[in-house]
Amino acid sequence: MVFITRRERFNAAHRLFRADFSDEENLNTFGKCSNPNWHGHNYTLYVTVKGLVNPETGFVINLKDLSQLIESQIIEKLDHRNINLEVDFMQGKLASTENIAIGIWDELEAPVGLLGGKLHCVRVCETENNSVEYFGKIF
Amino acid sequence: MVFITRRERFNAAHRLFRADFSDEENLNTFGKCSNPNWHGHNYTLYVTVKGLVNPETGFVINLKDLSQLIESQIIEKLDHRNINLEVDFMQGKLASTENIAIGIWDELEAPVGLLGGKLHCVRVCETENNSVEYFGKIF
Amino acid sequence: MVFITRRERFNAAHRLFRADFSDEENLNTFGKCSNPNWHGHNYTLYVTVKGLVNPETGFVINLKDLSQLIESQIIEKLDHRNINLEVDFMQGKLASTENIAIGIWDELEAPVGLLGGKLHCVRVCETENNSVEYFGKIF
Amino acid sequence: MVFITRRERFNAAHRLFRADFSDEENLNTFGKCSNPNWHGHNYTLYVTVKGLVNPETGFVINLKDLSQLIESQIIEKLDHRNINLEVDFMQGKLASTENIAIGIWDELEAPVGLLGGKLHCVRVCETENNSVEYFGKIF
Amino acid sequence: MVFITRRERFNAAHRLFRADFSDEENLNTFGKCSNPNWHGHNYTLYVTVKGLVNPETGFVINLKDLSQLIESQIIEKLDHRNINLEVDFMQGKLASTENIAIGIWDELEAPVGLLGGKLHCVRVCETENNSVEYFGKIF
Amino acid sequence: MVFITRRERFNAAHRLFRADFSDEENLNTFGKCSNPNWHGHNYTLYVTVKGLVNPETGFVINLKDLSQLIESQIIEKLDHRNINLEVDFMQGKLASTENIAIGIWDELEAPVGLLGGKLHCVRVCETENNSVEYFGKIF
Repeated sequence: MVFITRRERFNAAHRLFRADFSDEENLNTFGKCSNPNWHGHNYTLYVTVKGLVNPETGFVINLKDLSQLIESQIIEKLDHRNINLEVDFMQGKLASTENIAIGIWDELEAPVGLLGGKLHCVRVCETENNSVEYFGKIF
Repeated sequence: MVFITRRERFNAAHRLFRADFSDEENLNTFGKCSNPNWHGHNYTLYVTVKGLVNPETGFVINLKDLSQLIESQIIEKLDHRNINLEVDFMQGKLASTENIAIGIWDELEAPVGLLGGKLHCVRVCETENNSVEYFGKIF
Repeated sequence: MVFITRRERFNAAHRLFRADFSDEENLNTFGKCSNPNWHGHNYTLYVTVKGLVNPETGFVINLKDLSQLIESQIIEKLDHRNINLEVDFMQGKLASTENIAIGIWDELEAPVGLLGGKLHCVRVCETENNSVEYFGKIF
Repeated sequence: MVFITRRERFNAAHRLFRADFSDEENLNTFGKCSNPNWHGHNYTLYVTVKGLVNPETGFVINLKDLSQLIESQIIEKLDHRNINLEVDFMQGKLASTENIAIGIWDELEAPVGLLGGKLHCVRVCETENNSVEYFGKIF
Repeated sequence: MVFITRRERFNAAHRLFRADFSDEENLNTFGKCSNPNWHGHNYTLYVTVKGLVNPETGFVINLKDLSQLIESQIIEKLDHRNINLEVDFMQGKLASTENIAIGIWDELEAPVGLLGGKLHCVRVCETENNSVEYFGKIF
Repeated sequence: MVFITRRERFNAAHRLFRADFSDEENLNTFGKCSNPNWHGHNYTLYVTVKGLVNPETGFVINLKDLSQLIESQIIEKLDHRNINLEVDFMQGKLASTENIAIGIWDELEAPVGLLGGKLHCVRVCETENNSVEYFGKIF
């Protein structure tokens, strides 16, 4: 079993808040991330797929295919977008890095399987100091 | 003469657009950066100050003072903010990296002088691939 | 279960040596790291906490709380300090990266639990080439 | 149990292709990586070793010994070399990052044991976007 | 005047050698870079353009145009190529980082002018330790 | 004229203080950098040399020679050392990044000339946030 990781990037706006909270409650809970006028990040996404090495190609899966899959399923939806308003798989969820990672996992798990690999980890870095990893429901 | 550089960071939302353009014209000119729902970046800011080394301290200027100045004059205004809507020194300007760098220069030039240094360069990195440097009106 | 990581940094002096060794023995065992006049590093610390996502906040734990905890319990004790002479939780221990990571784990395990998460990993990078991970006594 | 990681680097040429494929088939399968005139990378190698901390030294293993081992067993064979033509442990294999990682594991597993540690992971980064991890046949 | 920089990357094989030298002379002059079987690098290219900010757009030049220009004029010729054998503007030249930077400058100077900017600097990083800057014949 | 840069690194202890100051005065002026028990950094050093490209080699100067020069003249004196106590060219000076950069320049200027280049810039990075550049007495 070998683990292969592809890095992709997207730049997006978001806001952490609850509609049932007052501005003051949102500020207390989410700090400056609750700014009603939005803020944004250069997100870095690492997608790790595991599998056996195909002796015909030397690949677990073709990274070009994986990159195109992430591009079409994830980056096109997130890049230069407002995560709260415009991303279908984030509707009705708090736009935290945790939920973004879980949302990306749910989008990628099945199509990665169709490529012949098994999704192992989705890592999302919001800043150079903050990141999240999700390994599915196994752990 | 020695040149000393302090790095600071801010995360902000912005949009590139002209109010006198249609959405289609904005898209043609500014691409996906014109998204009306905003997007955002982790901006990295490098401020370079030049001066003689003070023999009493070994410093051009005290980097702690420079850091606090950048924090109070720039970062507090930009971090977790919407550059188009909320930043006083960007009002009425296109929120391009070029204009952000020039705006930061104009905010910092005088107070850096009060610290005893001379502002030499403001560098703003919007992504790992895109950055801008401004050296004032000298060049 | 989601894993969330916060990066913090500290700059410290240390020395690898045993008091029961001669200078020559220390040099043989620890190389130039045994220099009696100390040397130092920019250490990078990654603290990973695991837990379920709180549906009220979208957070495993609030990274602001985690950052403040690491700051008060770890960074204030280590930053701009001499690890051998001044850090309470390193007294009587060899100041290796391994022991620093274990020491940080022991300081953080209980208070991270009080924040509602479970400490998963402490990673300490001494240089861009050398790093250590500790996952507690589980492994 | 503590995990310690050493980073090393090598610059090498390679080509992804099968001798039983036509140029066109190789292009279809391996893309521009199949260029018959070779291309190359700055590979980054991370070797992780696990073990108990030796109370006499504070080390899992001495990183200087690990670095010298990686240098003599791996870097000298790969650095400024053609992976397809010149690296003994890659003969008869497709020069994919997956196979390079497995090949390095097989070269290092026994001698790392002689140093008193247990090889845990070999990570090979081909570019800033593409990397592979191998943990041996355990998984 | 504002300076704007775009980063692009290419992975290529090369060899430092002179056809009029014996293998031994090449080894003495160019070290392991003279390996007749080639080696390679992940090159990083920074292209800096200077100009006035266009008040209609906030741009010195549109970075999308600059990126496409670098892609079509430089990256397509260099990426996954053998610099000695396959790159038209490097024919008859030693494939040193210095000559690569000068060659890229000569390719880009005129078309950057057509975009409305003035080429200021071409920086080529061969490894994280080695890089070259060329500012044209002005200096 | 082409500019070529070599990166090297050293890990050292230092302290910012004046012997004619009380501990309190040192703390007021130099902050936690005045800790009498020392602290330390992973310093990164960038040495830039300018010159014409030698048509015989394609080099401004051979980077291997430059690297060996920096190693023997600078790194051996600074790496794993106490800058205040053990570095000959820093005796009698405040161990600020500014003075370190000037000191390195003075050590390198003549021998770089003997290699056939002209020293252009010494850049010293103390942390990822703080750095200094020195270009000699020209500016």
